[in-house]
Amino acid sequence: MSVRTPDPYPGWLSEEDLYEARNRLPMVYVEAVPVRLDPLGYVNEIGLLLQADEDGSMVRTLVSGRVLYRETIRAALLRHIEKDLGALAFPQLPISPVPFTVAEYFPAPSQTSFTDERQHAVALVYIVPVTGECSPRQDALELTWMTPEDVLSPGVQAEFDGGRGELVRQALAFAGIATS
Amino acid sequence: MSVRTPDPYPGWLSEEDLYEARNRLPMVYVEAVPVRLDPLGYVNEIGLLLQADEDGSMVRTLVSGRVLYRETIRAALLRHIEKDLGALAFPQLPISPVPFTVAEYFPAPSQTSFTDERQHAVALVYIVPVTGECSPRQDALELTWMTPEDVLSPGVQAEFDGGRGELVRQALAFAGIATS
Amino acid sequence: MSVRTPDPYPGWLSEEDLYEARNRLPMVYVEAVPVRLDPLGYVNEIGLLLQADEDGSMVRTLVSGRVLYRETIRAALLRHIEKDLGALAFPQLPISPVPFTVAEYFPAPSQTSFTDERQHAVALVYIVPVTGECSPRQDALELTWMTPEDVLSPGVQAEFDGGRGELVRQALAFAGIATS
Amino acid sequence: MSVRTPDPYPGWLSEEDLYEARNRLPMVYVEAVPVRLDPLGYVNEIGLLLQADEDGSMVRTLVSGRVLYRETIRAALLRHIEKDLGALAFPQLPISPVPFTVAEYFPAPSQTSFTDERQHAVALVYIVPVTGECSPRQDALELTWMTPEDVLSPGVQAEFDGGRGELVRQALAFAGIATS
Repeated sequence: MSVRTPDPYPGWLSEEDLYEARNRLPMVYVEAVPVRLDPLGYVNEIGLLLQADEDGSMVRTLVSGRVLYRETIRAALLRHIEKDLGALAFPQLPISPVPFTVAEYFPAPSQTSFTDERQHAVALVYIVPVTGECSPRQDALELTWMTPEDVLSPGVQAEFDGGRGELVRQALAFAGIATS
Repeated sequence: MSVRTPDPYPGWLSEEDLYEARNRLPMVYVEAVPVRLDPLGYVNEIGLLLQADEDGSMVRTLVSGRVLYRETIRAALLRHIEKDLGALAFPQLPISPVPFTVAEYFPAPSQTSFTDERQHAVALVYIVPVTGECSPRQDALELTWMTPEDVLSPGVQAEFDGGRGELVRQALAFAGIATS
Repeated sequence: MSVRTPDPYPGWLSEEDLYEARNRLPMVYVEAVPVRLDPLGYVNEIGLLLQADEDGSMVRTLVSGRVLYRETIRAALLRHIEKDLGALAFPQLPISPVPFTVAEYFPAPSQTSFTDERQHAVALVYIVPVTGECSPRQDALELTWMTPEDVLSPGVQAEFDGGRGELVRQALAFAGIATS
Repeated sequence: MSVRTPDPYPGWLSEEDLYEARNRLPMVYVEAVPVRLDPLGYVNEIGLLLQADEDGSMVRTLVSGRVLYRETIRAALLRHIEKDLGALAFPQLPISPVPFTVAEYFPAPSQTSFTDERQHAVALVYIVPVTGECSPRQDALELTWMTPEDVLSPGVQAEFDGGRGELVRQALAFAGIATS
């Protein structure tokens, strides 16, 4: 017998409820493009995660995750960066809440470039410089640092999932790096 | 007995389900600061809506509303502008999905300036020039066009709800209008 | 004999003085990417000017020009748009002085993507929707409206001068249009 | 007798030529608002310089200076930060060339909020987090770190010169800090 006062709105959804919600409401996401900068602030390298998708094929992806109930964007960003890059990444969180782009992921092809079979997600996307040591945790198999040229190469672009190759191009364009 | 084929994921929530979701998930919102511009693009006037809040007191507010499941940000923005300003407002929707700020509304005072008793909402906020005739519909009683000076006056600032006076200050700062 | 009081600082430079200054100081420029939008604000078409460069070859370019002494950015933007697109273009000048990018043109290849043999120019670049009729004046031979796909095609990209093909890619990335 | 080949365009102007140019051309400036951030990226403190102006009165100012011929914006920003804050400030230069605002300084009151008796300057303004030790050099007498509340107080706002109090308000608005 439970003696705890039941909490009607734990701010946490059961797996089942989350599945339901994902079919009825857009989810708030944050996404981070990890970069290493030179002393003048130019992007030297971009950090890409390698993950197995549902079919078992390997895909390139970015740091990405849901904003929880009552969680700030900055706290969600830091939580997902620590989860994906480890506690010693020393990320420089953005000064402004304004993202460099907003990516709208839909379950089916749409007017946007982004798809996510599981849900409709609205992702605020930030470029996040990291200065420490990164060690991917959880379900990411590998973190690879690549130059802008390599990330933009057709081979690497083909390994991205859900339109995230385009997202990285937009990040580089915002940073003033040539994308052609 | 219902003869309708049940739709398991209508993309629309019942009032009750929406109430539940609002206590468990952040909601995606769009918000628009309607403005009239002079030919050089300087903000001449800001459009403020006057609405009764739950206690029956009158508060100043902006165009604001939820993004529905499978709805794009732009479509949600247009829908709420048409709902609040009428079909003849002729808004100039933003060229970029990047908002001038992201306002995080929490049910209780927080690190952000914004509160909403009903929910945790993440609002993408845009400045939207309108060139046509505006006639408030639905539950807005009145639309008032004010100069930046008037909007920034302590009297008008005190009439805003949930921190939206601050939001308008941020909009004016972004537009390069002096806020002091 | 002149009876005019000489004006020591006319705010206008002689051709010779301007030539000298261009070899000693960075010039302030504004640049505009003219676009036609659909009602939701998506970029339908980009307006490109066709001009003869110094060698007589034809190059694609954007609306571009110098900011004069005591001239505001907005006034310079409007003046150059009217000069290049005509008086009936009805441009929507930007709400904010913040450009979508800053392009640094150098006389020789540099860390930036942009070159200009004549000078070091710092250009504030804006996307400017036009709703009226455009008729190129002055030295532009032709104004062509192209879809984003066409502008991004290798053939058209090769016709740009000074790195402006890259600038258009950055404009489209900012507008949330896929650039691959 | 000089054996050096004379360099007709040293990219450096004599004091006299610079004085002349300042009366005929807009100057390209960079400006930095130095800040200290908490781990989530919120602005904790703003660094203000105290300088004597031409009349000998003390004024608050920001890191600010001219972009030289053939100098990139980033190099100019770093040079002026090192000059004003010392070599151990460890600034985080911006990832993007896009400033949070563009401040147009005119020799006389104008449509903008900013004045500079010496010249017409177009300043690209960035928020720059510093993580090291700052020791003002050159003509700055003092560097003071203040909370946003203190910087926004009427007393401190009155000590700014040329409209820079407004500039700091815009910086805080961009950072999502309440300015009222």
